[in-house]
Amino acid sequence: MYLNLVIRMKLANKPGNLARVLTIIAQEGGTLGAIELISASPSCVTRDLMIRLNSREHLKRLVSAFEQMPEILILRISDRVFISHQGGKIEISPKRPILNWEDLSLMYTPGVAGVSEAIAAEADMAYGLTMKGNSVAIVTDGSAVLGLGDLGPYAALPVMEGKAVLFKKFANIDAFPLCLNVHEPGEIIDVVAACAPAFGGINLEDIAAPKCFEIEEKLAARLDIPVFHDDQHGTAIVTLAGLINALKVVGKSIADVKLVISGAGAAGVAIAKILINAGVSDLIVCDRKGAIARDLPPRQPSKLWIAENTNERCVHGQLKEVIAGADVFVGVSAPSLLNREDVMKMAEKSIVFALANPEPEVEPKEIYDVAAVIATGRSDYPNQINNALAFPGVFRGALDCHARVVNDQMCLAAAQALAGMISEEALSVENIIPSLFNEQVTPVVATAVRQAARKTGVSREFQVKPVAAVK
Amino acid sequence: MYLNLVIRMKLANKPGNLARVLTIIAQEGGTLGAIELISASPSCVTRDLMIRLNSREHLKRLVSAFEQMPEILILRISDRVFISHQGGKIEISPKRPILNWEDLSLMYTPGVAGVSEAIAAEADMAYGLTMKGNSVAIVTDGSAVLGLGDLGPYAALPVMEGKAVLFKKFANIDAFPLCLNVHEPGEIIDVVAACAPAFGGINLEDIAAPKCFEIEEKLAARLDIPVFHDDQHGTAIVTLAGLINALKVVGKSIADVKLVISGAGAAGVAIAKILINAGVSDLIVCDRKGAIARDLPPRQPSKLWIAENTNERCVHGQLKEVIAGADVFVGVSAPSLLNREDVMKMAEKSIVFALANPEPEVEPKEIYDVAAVIATGRSDYPNQINNALAFPGVFRGALDCHARVVNDQMCLAAAQALAGMISEEALSVENIIPSLFNEQVTPVVATAVRQAARKTGVSREFQVKPVAAVK
Repeated sequence: MYLNLVIRMKLANKPGNLARVLTIIAQEGGTLGAIELISASPSCVTRDLMIRLNSREHLKRLVSAFEQMPEILILRISDRVFISHQGGKIEISPKRPILNWEDLSLMYTPGVAGVSEAIAAEADMAYGLTMKGNSVAIVTDGSAVLGLGDLGPYAALPVMEGKAVLFKKFANIDAFPLCLNVHEPGEIIDVVAACAPAFGGINLEDIAAPKCFEIEEKLAARLDIPVFHDDQHGTAIVTLAGLINALKVVGKSIADVKLVISGAGAAGVAIAKILINAGVSDLIVCDRKGAIARDLPPRQPSKLWIAENTNERCVHGQLKEVIAGADVFVGVSAPSLLNREDVMKMAEKSIVFALANPEPEVEPKEIYDVAAVIATGRSDYPNQINNALAFPGVFRGALDCHARVVNDQMCLAAAQALAGMISEEALSVENIIPSLFNEQVTPVVATAVRQAARKTGVSREFQVKPVAAVK
Repeated sequence: MYLNLVIRMKLANKPGNLARVLTIIAQEGGTLGAIELISASPSCVTRDLMIRLNSREHLKRLVSAFEQMPEILILRISDRVFISHQGGKIEISPKRPILNWEDLSLMYTPGVAGVSEAIAAEADMAYGLTMKGNSVAIVTDGSAVLGLGDLGPYAALPVMEGKAVLFKKFANIDAFPLCLNVHEPGEIIDVVAACAPAFGGINLEDIAAPKCFEIEEKLAARLDIPVFHDDQHGTAIVTLAGLINALKVVGKSIADVKLVISGAGAAGVAIAKILINAGVSDLIVCDRKGAIARDLPPRQPSKLWIAENTNERCVHGQLKEVIAGADVFVGVSAPSLLNREDVMKMAEKSIVFALANPEPEVEPKEIYDVAAVIATGRSDYPNQINNALAFPGVFRGALDCHARVVNDQMCLAAAQALAGMISEEALSVENIIPSLFNEQVTPVVATAVRQAARKTGVSREFQVKPVAAVK
């Protein structure tokens, strides 16, 4: 894990001192960002240096190098990540100013009573007259926080706040973290159902497999708002989008390719499902024990589904064996499961999506001349498969048509729309998926999702009456 | 209930037409606010007129008066309350901008992982590094929405959003509505406890008595963050503050006065408790059946407490009888329970707090020359007893010292601080309580609450480490 630091230092105000500091940083292999001037006097200068280092060890070496120089005094070393988290990352504010009694009387008592009565008479009025029409609950129990495991609801909170930041930034959606201190699927379902009235959608996040499947399924059946487990479907949508374009690059058809998925957790199962919906027929999913096959049916319902719906030929064996001859590898599992030799055994013009994060199933630099197209989950390589390309547009589209659910067709439409954003001319082995900072991503995905919702009859086109027109 | 309207009309562009419109409004008794010019041409002018009317009937009369005039065309009549509610009243936004990959990597993955690990190691770090340190859940099941009764969680949502607006406006607190679709006390307690990790405090709101007592008590015992039922303690704090000053105005001592409360719901019980804590000894509480007394013990635990702790002399009878000779009347019950004659039977220099809203227990204009000091819950009379004078400062103070609870001493301190804001010189029969828009209210109350929390040992003075200092 990188360290992003701010080092505040006092230097004797003599020409060449800052240059000496930068030379030391360069020699020690630190990556330098901005340099800020904090204060200056005839005798000394105080500066903040943004530096990225590889580890605490790395920092120790740099600090002892600085300590050799009497003209440098280190005042403070701060972690930029922690600075960015100070006081939390989201806030809740009025959408309109409250300046006087009249504003209060319109937005709170006594005026609000009329709005409450209107909603009591017709519950759907809440979509137009409250936050419900634009709000999403980000629900977790902290049982699978990032790749870190079961850290619990408190430690999950900064991740969920970060997710809320993305919801607002990329889709103007008001998302709020529900970090739950209960862990049984039944309890989680009950709590979320109880909290649902204020929300237009539910985003499940960082909930461990296999309970995530049961929670999503039962909640979706119980509520009349979309329930979307981003670790499953967000990943699946962006993976399919990338794959559609990768196949175009290598000139293969999705119906014909031989595909191997590594990982049968939340993401692996959802990717298998969306790929089958998209027309893949030759698909094998491996978990830690190797290829999942119907003649050795696993007990977990989600893996049983895999056994029954993939691996037609009942292939057995470990990932390293099964991958021989495959056209496509999709990894959502663990670091360093494959090496260059394994990828060389794949079919010609192979596609490798090594999505384990931060360390992929195989290092891209090991295989860049072996695989035809490589994608990872990381932002420092080309072709980043990032959920944030999908979930903002999916929820934007679902909220905009008051969808009851997010169904398979909406997910497929989102993937196709995302893939379609890369024009034939722009398409290349290093450009199969749009950038997260492409502002067209959310509207394009949202439109596709809305249209699919309408086509499949899950949108609600009731007239939201924003203004009680007397005449 | 008033109607606050915007009437958009097209007038022939001739001198005197607008004057004629205003004359009609004046004749029909409408209250005119701003007049806006929407568009103008040589032939006609379109304007928006803000008008307050008493009822739909009133509007119909006005509209038919306009219809007599051929030079006026009404284009649209909209309800200003509904316009103010369009799209909801709160939004959730990032506290810092996300402009590029670096911002994302600090605030979301991979940077956030270090923050999650820090909190997993030491849960209290969440106070400094997440929203928890400044967030409050506004919890309701919609069982007692304003004075409207059991309208359910959807209809309660606009009220809770309004409350969130007040939290931000008056105390810079990030408050979020949890409108719960469960109604048994045990269920409500379980859901709130499950959602608690993201919050620094719980504000219970518009939950019916008597279940509100059980919910507050059990939640407070279960959680290590303050649980505060505003309909109880907010009202009690502001009532006591007003009473302290009203007693100064009439020159009576709180230990000596004879006091009658009408209403034994959430507010009535909490007011009785805070008054006893403040030194009142002669107190009778009446519910619908009359004075509550220990020789006819009621079954409800909260009323049983009243029976056992008030009405020393075991007085019996209806409110109208019991009030004879009383120095102070506090009503948190229902409209028009008392008249001028009843108040005339009270002791000399009587104090009447008729807090039923929007229609008080007795109309102030009926008794302005009989009672010495009158207070209501309304903003169109002097001496408004408004919860918003208390809860923002109470939570600000509690959050700032990471209080575990809000205890009796903190509530008493809040009331005394609020009363103390009216100087001896400013004190008068029409000025016993500060205005809601006095910006000193929240800091003054917060400071008193924080000091009381420290004095009673319920604050947590752990060092929040906002920056992981390496050196």
